[in-house]
Amino acid sequence: MSRPPRHGGSLDRAVAEFGGAHADWLDLSTGINPVPWPVPPIPAEIWERLPEHSLEDYCLDAARAYYSVPEGAAIVAAPGTQAIIQRLGDLIGTNRRIGIVTPTYGEYDWCLATPDRVVGTVRAIPAYEDGYDGVVFGNPNNPDGARHAGETDRTAVAALLAHSGTVIVDEAFADVAPEASYVPDTGNDGLIVLRSFGKFFGLAGIRLGFAIGPPGDMARLRRLLGPWAVPGPALFVGGRALRDIAWIAETRTRLMRDRQRLTGLLERHGFAIAGHTDLFVLAVHDRAPGIAAALARARIWVRSFDKDAAWLRFGLPGDDAAFARLEKALAQAV
Amino acid sequence: MSRPPRHGGSLDRAVAEFGGAHADWLDLSTGINPVPWPVPPIPAEIWERLPEHSLEDYCLDAARAYYSVPEGAAIVAAPGTQAIIQRLGDLIGTNRRIGIVTPTYGEYDWCLATPDRVVGTVRAIPAYEDGYDGVVFGNPNNPDGARHAGETDRTAVAALLAHSGTVIVDEAFADVAPEASYVPDTGNDGLIVLRSFGKFFGLAGIRLGFAIGPPGDMARLRRLLGPWAVPGPALFVGGRALRDIAWIAETRTRLMRDRQRLTGLLERHGFAIAGHTDLFVLAVHDRAPGIAAALARARIWVRSFDKDAAWLRFGLPGDDAAFARLEKALAQAV
Repeated sequence: MSRPPRHGGSLDRAVAEFGGAHADWLDLSTGINPVPWPVPPIPAEIWERLPEHSLEDYCLDAARAYYSVPEGAAIVAAPGTQAIIQRLGDLIGTNRRIGIVTPTYGEYDWCLATPDRVVGTVRAIPAYEDGYDGVVFGNPNNPDGARHAGETDRTAVAALLAHSGTVIVDEAFADVAPEASYVPDTGNDGLIVLRSFGKFFGLAGIRLGFAIGPPGDMARLRRLLGPWAVPGPALFVGGRALRDIAWIAETRTRLMRDRQRLTGLLERHGFAIAGHTDLFVLAVHDRAPGIAAALARARIWVRSFDKDAAWLRFGLPGDDAAFARLEKALAQAV
Repeated sequence: MSRPPRHGGSLDRAVAEFGGAHADWLDLSTGINPVPWPVPPIPAEIWERLPEHSLEDYCLDAARAYYSVPEGAAIVAAPGTQAIIQRLGDLIGTNRRIGIVTPTYGEYDWCLATPDRVVGTVRAIPAYEDGYDGVVFGNPNNPDGARHAGETDRTAVAALLAHSGTVIVDEAFADVAPEASYVPDTGNDGLIVLRSFGKFFGLAGIRLGFAIGPPGDMARLRRLLGPWAVPGPALFVGGRALRDIAWIAETRTRLMRDRQRLTGLLERHGFAIAGHTDLFVLAVHDRAPGIAAALARARIWVRSFDKDAAWLRFGLPGDDAAFARLEKALAQAV
């Protein structure tokens, strides 16, 4: 990949291409929960003081419980999962052949591919016998929502690990698919699971992500990130939100209901559903580019893909008004 | 260096060693302004949305003006200067011989020293003829407040740059010594200046730092840090605070007055002043370890140094009550 990957979530680009101001737009171009956990007032010392180890532990203890991190595994906090992806190459090392299960998030390839680390795209978790000693995959995957957690997948993962392979599982969207998670298997050498705070909790601006894996790898990652890597406000908010069991349960229910509503709406307007999580829906339409442009003229921003022009990924509208606005725009666009 | 460096600013350690709760302590162990820029309410979308390029530009435009970045140089924001120091090795490359002007912040050596990159400690900016092709120094330096910005220093820097050397100047405390800054020289190949937001603005928990240097190096650093590297709240607060000219001017005046008051107080209690910036004072006393312990029993935390047991570094007390508390404790401790 010779150019950095494009991402959803940029209203700057929407405005540059189609006009208006940020506030005019309904942004459905991400998989971020549009009904965020409510940020409380932040105590002054959280802004003012260097983040203490005790504050980091406050956040990590909550994360260990929320993600069900097993005894033998360690967890590291970072200023966003992307900051961990930037360091995956250092963790994995060189002279490795890593398969990336595609289509998926473009940053794995962008950050990992180097002349001395061969990265190949694969359609499923590859085998050591096929020349791979590592794999990166999303679970559930972005943008197609695919879960790579069935028996075949888990057997393939175990086989790679048995050959001292490296398995990186990005579970950025696993808050809405906890039963598919590989976190219970962490602690096994070579297996690293990434979890994102901002998507499910609707607080992507805060930048908070976690890596869960073998204690040795996690100690190396912690050293690569350095002291005070995560801002105090992120540790404080993360520590609170990850303990808010009631909000988490209600949110899972609401997201499932709203995702079903979105799926139904898209199907009524002639889309086929190619995949989903409860945070986004990947929809297919042979006139997708024209529909996306018509939605953009109505100031609704969805995610298009260079890879497949028939794809559009829709994030969840946050309330009835947003659903109505999308429905009206689709009625005119399709 | 085989162990990570110790740092000031950890009340966890104060509490572990001497007891009490965080709130009982007067923390003078850092060089962080104790009267912070007042953080306004953060708009909801700053927490919720991925940080947009336009928000990053809002912060970087303010930083360019505040630091007087010249036309030919570029600036990159990071989640704290430490996050940039973690990447200096990638920027500098290997097979280099880098001098670190010591005594100084321990992280330069910890992050840069590798088998294929020789790091040596030097007392002044070294010469290419002496076998160095790079240098790292603080300006003003921590913990002794030394400025490496006189004619001899600048000539030595120019000579290293003329030999394609690398010069890293950490100006974490230069907000109170703007006339000493190397920022006006950035844009020259090989010269990178680091600036910290949190110390002068008293908001160390927010994690915001900048690198200023040649556009090519800064583009590489930006790529190493990756997308959305700096949280939205830090970009928002930074963009506001760096534009608050009146607060900045008043704060410089107040810090100078309070530093003079602190220097006088320490001298009256038998300390010799080894150096200072307007954010901290390095004081020397032959009974320093005993004095530090006595201050700690009075719940005042100052910075000791393995390197020199006679040194104590004092941050500024934030108000009259804190000055009085320090004075009373010193009267009993010395």
